[in-house]
Amino acid sequence: MGGEDKVENGYGSEDEPKDERHAKKEEEEEMMMTVERVFESKEVPSWRQQLTLRAFMVSFVLSILFSFIVMKLNLTTGIIPSLNVSAGFLGFFFIKTWTKVLEKSGMLQVPFTRQENTVIQTCVVASSGIAFSGGFGSYLFGMSKRIAIQSGSTPGADDYKDPSLSWIIGFLFIVSFLGLLAVVPLRKIMIIDFKLTYPSGTATAHLINSFHMPEGAKLAKKQVKALGKFFSFSFLWGFFQWFYTAADSCGFASFPTLGLKAFENRFYFDFSAMYVGVGMICPYIVNISLLLGGILSWGLMWPLIEKKAGDWYSADLKPSSMHGLQGYRVFISIAMILGDGLYNFCKVLRRTLFGLYHQIRDKNSLPRVVNGSPTESSQLSFDDQRRTSLFLKDQVPTSFAVGGYIVIAIISIITLPHVFHQLKWYHILVMYLAAPTLAFCNAYGCGLTDWSLASTYGKLAIFVIGAWAGASHGGVLAGLAACGVMMNIVSTASDLTQDFKTGYLTLASPRSMFVSQVIGTAMGCVISPCVFWLFYKAFKDLGLSTSAYPAPYASIYRSMAMLAVEGFSSLPKNCLALCYGFFAASIVVNAIRDYVPKKYSRFIPIPMAMAIPFYLGSYFAIDMCVGSLILFLWERMDKTKADAFGPAVASGLICGDGIWTLPSAILALAGVKPPICMKFLSRAANNRVDGFLNSS
Amino acid sequence: MGGEDKVENGYGSEDEPKDERHAKKEEEEEMMMTVERVFESKEVPSWRQQLTLRAFMVSFVLSILFSFIVMKLNLTTGIIPSLNVSAGFLGFFFIKTWTKVLEKSGMLQVPFTRQENTVIQTCVVASSGIAFSGGFGSYLFGMSKRIAIQSGSTPGADDYKDPSLSWIIGFLFIVSFLGLLAVVPLRKIMIIDFKLTYPSGTATAHLINSFHMPEGAKLAKKQVKALGKFFSFSFLWGFFQWFYTAADSCGFASFPTLGLKAFENRFYFDFSAMYVGVGMICPYIVNISLLLGGILSWGLMWPLIEKKAGDWYSADLKPSSMHGLQGYRVFISIAMILGDGLYNFCKVLRRTLFGLYHQIRDKNSLPRVVNGSPTESSQLSFDDQRRTSLFLKDQVPTSFAVGGYIVIAIISIITLPHVFHQLKWYHILVMYLAAPTLAFCNAYGCGLTDWSLASTYGKLAIFVIGAWAGASHGGVLAGLAACGVMMNIVSTASDLTQDFKTGYLTLASPRSMFVSQVIGTAMGCVISPCVFWLFYKAFKDLGLSTSAYPAPYASIYRSMAMLAVEGFSSLPKNCLALCYGFFAASIVVNAIRDYVPKKYSRFIPIPMAMAIPFYLGSYFAIDMCVGSLILFLWERMDKTKADAFGPAVASGLICGDGIWTLPSAILALAGVKPPICMKFLSRAANNRVDGFLNSS
Repeated sequence: MGGEDKVENGYGSEDEPKDERHAKKEEEEEMMMTVERVFESKEVPSWRQQLTLRAFMVSFVLSILFSFIVMKLNLTTGIIPSLNVSAGFLGFFFIKTWTKVLEKSGMLQVPFTRQENTVIQTCVVASSGIAFSGGFGSYLFGMSKRIAIQSGSTPGADDYKDPSLSWIIGFLFIVSFLGLLAVVPLRKIMIIDFKLTYPSGTATAHLINSFHMPEGAKLAKKQVKALGKFFSFSFLWGFFQWFYTAADSCGFASFPTLGLKAFENRFYFDFSAMYVGVGMICPYIVNISLLLGGILSWGLMWPLIEKKAGDWYSADLKPSSMHGLQGYRVFISIAMILGDGLYNFCKVLRRTLFGLYHQIRDKNSLPRVVNGSPTESSQLSFDDQRRTSLFLKDQVPTSFAVGGYIVIAIISIITLPHVFHQLKWYHILVMYLAAPTLAFCNAYGCGLTDWSLASTYGKLAIFVIGAWAGASHGGVLAGLAACGVMMNIVSTASDLTQDFKTGYLTLASPRSMFVSQVIGTAMGCVISPCVFWLFYKAFKDLGLSTSAYPAPYASIYRSMAMLAVEGFSSLPKNCLALCYGFFAASIVVNAIRDYVPKKYSRFIPIPMAMAIPFYLGSYFAIDMCVGSLILFLWERMDKTKADAFGPAVASGLICGDGIWTLPSAILALAGVKPPICMKFLSRAANNRVDGFLNSS
Repeated sequence: MGGEDKVENGYGSEDEPKDERHAKKEEEEEMMMTVERVFESKEVPSWRQQLTLRAFMVSFVLSILFSFIVMKLNLTTGIIPSLNVSAGFLGFFFIKTWTKVLEKSGMLQVPFTRQENTVIQTCVVASSGIAFSGGFGSYLFGMSKRIAIQSGSTPGADDYKDPSLSWIIGFLFIVSFLGLLAVVPLRKIMIIDFKLTYPSGTATAHLINSFHMPEGAKLAKKQVKALGKFFSFSFLWGFFQWFYTAADSCGFASFPTLGLKAFENRFYFDFSAMYVGVGMICPYIVNISLLLGGILSWGLMWPLIEKKAGDWYSADLKPSSMHGLQGYRVFISIAMILGDGLYNFCKVLRRTLFGLYHQIRDKNSLPRVVNGSPTESSQLSFDDQRRTSLFLKDQVPTSFAVGGYIVIAIISIITLPHVFHQLKWYHILVMYLAAPTLAFCNAYGCGLTDWSLASTYGKLAIFVIGAWAGASHGGVLAGLAACGVMMNIVSTASDLTQDFKTGYLTLASPRSMFVSQVIGTAMGCVISPCVFWLFYKAFKDLGLSTSAYPAPYASIYRSMAMLAVEGFSSLPKNCLALCYGFFAASIVVNAIRDYVPKKYSRFIPIPMAMAIPFYLGSYFAIDMCVGSLILFLWERMDKTKADAFGPAVASGLICGDGIWTLPSAILALAGVKPPICMKFLSRAANNRVDGFLNSS
């Protein structure tokens, strides 16, 4: 992962994804024995049989769970690791328990198949994917008045739109299905003809296959047990922490673990089980990059810039003013994110075009992957034959897909300007004309590199549509809304293609995949806004930079839109120069990472990951490095065990803390406040407080 | 363990000691194969060769370490678990490292033998035993003015004696060697003829033997590694905690883990690694008893009695006044301790006399143990033959022992009244006439039951000598001083006999045991007062009931002496009736424990253990129960591993935290104060404080 740009694909893909390593290992195993031989005796259910009621009930429960997790991650740091593995574990666990109970009571009619498991996986990923692509932590919340004020402007009536359950749900329903329809006709080309790898989807498929093999089930049971243990621990730890947070700056989240001075500069371990788990999932280099970014910015640059207060910027400004230090933080982050995004956009585009060129040139020969080395021997293996025949059996008619796209596009061209009157019908039309191409590009790129560039396309939309609409016509809002439209389309497109790959490898029907994705998306369009609404109502300071839920990308996206509309005029002194520098550095570092040999490049930090702590500080980076450290020590002690149980433990930590936000939000809504404040005072302050308490 | 009365034997023996279980298991193993056959090829060094310089250097280092640990335990709760196992581990570890280094450099002349290991063990136990029997947490510190004032009286010049390095060292040198000389002539009777079991000594011997067997050494290495790991963790945890204790009631030790209301009544987990470790060593029933005692007293009785303020006692008193609630706490504790002590004194005395009677009656038959079942087959085993022959080889002349006893007795009769002018020469003479008998009784009883009753003999001395001297002649001081004399004699007597047993089982010469004990005692007479002095100077509120080092037994012993001298007149209303009740209950519960079958008795709490939280509250009981819980879960998960590594982990936790007190005391002496206060405020108080901090 390491930044929003690399997380969208069902919030799954990453820069150097774990899943890829995983997939490689599994592939080796596969070499030794074909998977489908093992499963040969098992009948593949028809596509209708794959879509069981119980699967969707489990999916619904898991969707809520994962929506909470993704929402919390969105609103705290915006860093979202791949939760596919957790979804796989939990789906397996839920339905296995269910079928076991039914089996014992003699009521089990349909056994649990891996196809059904894939359906659950797909539905959950689709549904909780909306929690990311809905932009609750980025463009959508960036429209609100609160973020607008925090960003330093006094917004006019055209420049903000506060969230409300009704228009969010409507908006999501309008824009979330287009992506699905755009790529459905292309699935055969990408999966069968191009044989794209889709590392995350492949890894998920292997996980599901292994669960349903006799030996895999045993290990899976142990893994699920480990997950359950750490889930409980993490949940209870969240609960325990709650008691000590009677007010702001109380509790473990304000623990100056590295001293008060370091705490002031946001260097501390905040005891968040979630981010320790995230750290265990993210590659080491991502965590190190985050920490380096934090040290560079909060340890070095901000203190230096702060000394220029009164010279570079007015010293009387509020700490949150964009014209002061906060401006440097936000715009330098944006510069790095844009630099990284641009580099990777070009890279993926180049590889996409290059790949397409090869595909077309070698039309008559067997499909190849762009890097030139054929992935398959020219003889189709048993596995491939079986998978291909089943993949081609059930079809989703192209006419249905194209017709659906046109109908929905027309509906949204008519309705969207009513939601955002700043967005004109011609803006939307242009986007919908471009969208299928971009959706295909993203799906293809993601298949090659496991990177979804959805938010990069979103930013593109911000700049194009924002500048087009112009400041006087509410360009900021138009830009953010356009970002939402674009992100939803390209993000769901790559998700679905990823799922087709998973389905291909688990013999799930493309038709059941599609239905599951549609149902999952519909669920997500309702669940995600509701979950966001709960957070929004429960935590009154949501989005403020001092809050426990600072929603960093909301400010960043809004600032980007303002930049697009208003230009560089509002930046404080020397900020633009710094931005240019970091923009260039971001590109250069990325280029170096690509062009030096792997053995060196793995020590070079990722600019995108470095950018996030520029805004937030290093506390979560320290959590994540603790996670890395735990995994590192574990691997050193017992590599096999760490590999088998690491992801389960990490998932448990993430899910437990994530789901604790549900009761915590409910408590906040009900007005139940924690009874105790764990406060950290310097010795001098403590003496004064003791004096005050004794005298009063 | 479970209270001071059961901890004296080299602070080793306990009510239902782990060691005994341990010993039993080891004995079973022994049945299968004779230990000495394994060691037959190894030459036993002469007694002079057993006493190497390196052994005493290691002993010196370990003595300091253990003195710190015992002192901290003395001054916090007075609960001291058996540290023999830790001493065994660490002694082995130190010298093994040393010899390995020498071996590699080719300089090793003398290999490390188990006899040498026993010498270290003996020396360390003797030395750190002084830290307990020196009474720094009980009679000796109870003499000080601070404790006298806290106990509610306005002490006259005759009624207190503040600690000072010089007189403490002198006093210890005078009284600590008599016990050794008193039992040396009797060792053959107790070890060879009576074949007393000495469970702790036997367990230690088995531990040492197992270390030096080829397979044992491998396990020992792993155990030492586990110890090292948890030692470091515990030390670093202590260090980390330090930063947050800028003032009283700051830091983890004041963490209201169970809520503020519970905290007020001293129910909280105080994150002390030491007491978690202690809890892992103590039997479950001890920890449960402690917790039950805490719930009964601080959860039930004190809140009820507090409601009677103004009726039963004046409501205007200081919280620490003995005429108020504190009086109930102290005197009900004393009643239970005395009841338990009396019961066990009678029990052990009865068994001692009964055993002696059998020994004498069955003189011509082979030795038996009192319970009637012969421990040995009538044929002496190979092990016994070899052990007996070596045990009888080196002798300590009886004339030397008797002569030494008389000389030291005369010296101390002359000098002691100069140290404590309240203690007359005839008091001392009487004690010295009775001492050899009592020392024998204690050594014999300890051999049978693993219980050393040293502090019971000490209390006897308080009451006899205190009442004899009378209030007008400084009876309180005379009583406490007499307690010291008596405790030191009987305590060292049982220690040495225990060590003879260990030596017997490891083929160490009795002469080297004796020399090692003498050197260890001499070390202890210097090290312990110095360690105490460091605590006394570094922590200015040492002994106050609000301190982190409340030294509970100092107050209890002083109150006992006052009771002896002044009678019951000073007790608050209804306190005497409650005391009678608890005194009787303590005896009855003990009797029930003894007379119901084992399977029920193991669920009946131990009154002695229940008494301590009456004074202190439950916080350490909760720590210890956490230790129990950890061990319990561990045993359920992996019994073999828990049995093998549990004691090592516990020792690591205890030693790490214990040794942290050294730097922490030095920091306190140097005036370095921690920078941060972690404070716990109720929500209301926090609001006021926030208001205050914002306004100022």
